[in-house]
Amino acid sequence: MLCSKMDIKTYMHEVGQAARAASRAIARADSAAKNRALLAIADAIERNSAMLQTANQQDMAAAQADGLDSALLDRLQLNAAAIAGMAEGLRQIAALPDPVGEITDLKYRPSGIQVGKMRVPLGVIGIIYESRPNVTADAAGLCLKSGNAAILRGGSEALRSNQVIAACVSEGLAAAGLPETVVQIVNTTDRAAVAELITLREFVDVIVPRGGKSLIERLMKDARIPVIKHLHGVCHVFIDERADLNKAVRIADNAKTSRYGTCNTMETLLVAQAVAAQVLPEIAKIYTAKGVAMRGCPLTRAIIAEAAAATEDDWFTEYLAPIIAIRIVEDMDAAMDHIQHYGSQHTDSIVTEDYSRARRFLREVDSSSVMVNASTRFADGYEYGLGAEIGISTDKIHARGPVGLEGLTSQKWIVLGDGHVRG
Amino acid sequence: MLCSKMDIKTYMHEVGQAARAASRAIARADSAAKNRALLAIADAIERNSAMLQTANQQDMAAAQADGLDSALLDRLQLNAAAIAGMAEGLRQIAALPDPVGEITDLKYRPSGIQVGKMRVPLGVIGIIYESRPNVTADAAGLCLKSGNAAILRGGSEALRSNQVIAACVSEGLAAAGLPETVVQIVNTTDRAAVAELITLREFVDVIVPRGGKSLIERLMKDARIPVIKHLHGVCHVFIDERADLNKAVRIADNAKTSRYGTCNTMETLLVAQAVAAQVLPEIAKIYTAKGVAMRGCPLTRAIIAEAAAATEDDWFTEYLAPIIAIRIVEDMDAAMDHIQHYGSQHTDSIVTEDYSRARRFLREVDSSSVMVNASTRFADGYEYGLGAEIGISTDKIHARGPVGLEGLTSQKWIVLGDGHVRG
Repeated sequence: MLCSKMDIKTYMHEVGQAARAASRAIARADSAAKNRALLAIADAIERNSAMLQTANQQDMAAAQADGLDSALLDRLQLNAAAIAGMAEGLRQIAALPDPVGEITDLKYRPSGIQVGKMRVPLGVIGIIYESRPNVTADAAGLCLKSGNAAILRGGSEALRSNQVIAACVSEGLAAAGLPETVVQIVNTTDRAAVAELITLREFVDVIVPRGGKSLIERLMKDARIPVIKHLHGVCHVFIDERADLNKAVRIADNAKTSRYGTCNTMETLLVAQAVAAQVLPEIAKIYTAKGVAMRGCPLTRAIIAEAAAATEDDWFTEYLAPIIAIRIVEDMDAAMDHIQHYGSQHTDSIVTEDYSRARRFLREVDSSSVMVNASTRFADGYEYGLGAEIGISTDKIHARGPVGLEGLTSQKWIVLGDGHVRG
Repeated sequence: MLCSKMDIKTYMHEVGQAARAASRAIARADSAAKNRALLAIADAIERNSAMLQTANQQDMAAAQADGLDSALLDRLQLNAAAIAGMAEGLRQIAALPDPVGEITDLKYRPSGIQVGKMRVPLGVIGIIYESRPNVTADAAGLCLKSGNAAILRGGSEALRSNQVIAACVSEGLAAAGLPETVVQIVNTTDRAAVAELITLREFVDVIVPRGGKSLIERLMKDARIPVIKHLHGVCHVFIDERADLNKAVRIADNAKTSRYGTCNTMETLLVAQAVAAQVLPEIAKIYTAKGVAMRGCPLTRAIIAEAAAATEDDWFTEYLAPIIAIRIVEDMDAAMDHIQHYGSQHTDSIVTEDYSRARRFLREVDSSSVMVNASTRFADGYEYGLGAEIGISTDKIHARGPVGLEGLTSQKWIVLGDGHVRG
């Protein structure tokens, strides 16, 4: 048991050092070994499903005793189906192409040398997340496949579950002849461990946080390592004057109601004044039927009687709930101004049949995903063909939008010569 | 004149705010407008060459009076040829393809949506550099072409030169109908301005430092904005047992002696024991003739009598001078261990005719440029075909190795649908 600050410092230093050493082995591991490990971890998780459920029940009981809220308990819980899903996710990662070592753009230069790029792992990735124990398996799988070592810092309420999953990961790594330290979980609930992890510059190359706003804000303040961060998703759909209104209704419905708690869910619907009276009643009917509370601008409320008055705060809010803000705007320029001012640069979509406006919206909206005639709910690693995602980045540096295996890698330059020297 | 800390804070806040506003305009500017601006800046610099030389002479006189060292004075000085070179560099940047808006990998997904990536500017780039006034023109040009706004903080000793260049940049921007605030120089020599610039998170997206180790160390400690950093270049050439020794001699010569002060210059030569006695005497002869001081391991000194004894520190040192460290190693594995332990992950090259070793070296050496049978001196944006470089990154996040226009951009996802919703 770790009890003092000094112990935590020493412990995290050891974890970091072991991760750095393991990162060299996993960077060089061939695809076959990595895939063997992924499949062996999947098998171990399925084989130990009952033990994992028992550990998870203990976590759940402790969390209930501590009075944790129901949303958190919901994310913490693992049943047999969720465990099978974890194993399936690992098998899917095994089936993805190996990004490491891929050589691209190899071209002859006028000097006679060939110059190209080779995809390489980042090194050691620190992942900080909350409650959901399935992230332990997902993150371990993605880091392993992309040739990185991982240090996983899950929520303290999930420690028992995470320890069982980590044991399965170790078993799978060992079965494939890879160092067990390729994936380590931080084996303490002491919060000081996070402070250490985010400043271990010598041993950790990037931090991927998967948590709420307070975690991200802490990292922006205290981290001394690059962070691939996901702030929040205030996503918009703009129904243009030249929209196909059937598509508009379908997208407004799906973007809001297919799931309320996801970051790619639409939070604000913007409608061009010219079509508002035509399209909003039908959309309002759907929202009302599905129990979505509407908050509108004055023009919206003149059309939708049930809508409450939206305040300035509403336009900034990520509800993650069956609530939607609706605003009528003059035209696309006004919509883009709204998105720029209130949005979070996550995902924004225009519904229009107008070619030139679609082209402008795609170019000018500065968000990680920009869409035409599609639901914001598509902003997702699986839907984009990444196979799996470790998170969605709202940053512009390094990775933007859904981050899959490629986002966990970098590219080095390679030069092939035949005794070439520079003139 | 700015005189108090509060003034600097206010001033930098204003500069940042103006840059953020300008970044939106330049992000949307079409290629023609950007190229018109670049050519107009080039013309203005040539037209004002005499005025720029006068300002530069004032900077030089003040720097001499302040007792600045000759290397710095050398970097500070601008003659007519250097000024013409600046203009030529801007014309070359104008001739490069525009990276902004490039759409790649647009593919249909099973859901029916098309998903791809569009290259976009980063936003506002802060560049901190020392003495060389030509960086002002280069950096302005690269940022402008890549659709970014720039805040340039040059060395205080070059302020008068930089002000003239900045006036030419403003003139060119205005001539092309672009906001003059797309490129701003920090118009004060107060060092507090740097502290403000590197924490202006709201307005600055990335910091590119071009300076010595102390600047980088300060940024690593104090910056609250992502930094594309270039630490230092302890570059190696390893002559393998199966090297073509003629190529080995040629590369050992060029990598060390073609220029001493560049970061891609070889600092340590590693030689496989089996060929050391054969190849080192010829290399030593060249170094002696060119006045390169040699520092070797005991085995090296048994072959090269003139070599001084290398200390542990020598293996870590970036000499940037006519000095070379030479070490005889058992084999490629020992060479790679040396590079991993003592290197700076900048540029490392193997000389070998052995296919499997070349393949392993390329894969396993974790440096921003890894070469086979080529001089480390090729690690350069122009040589790699980037057209120009803003610096060389020794980071792995975002950009690695020479950073050109592409390194100053990011990619957002674009989704094209036809009313598609997620199931």
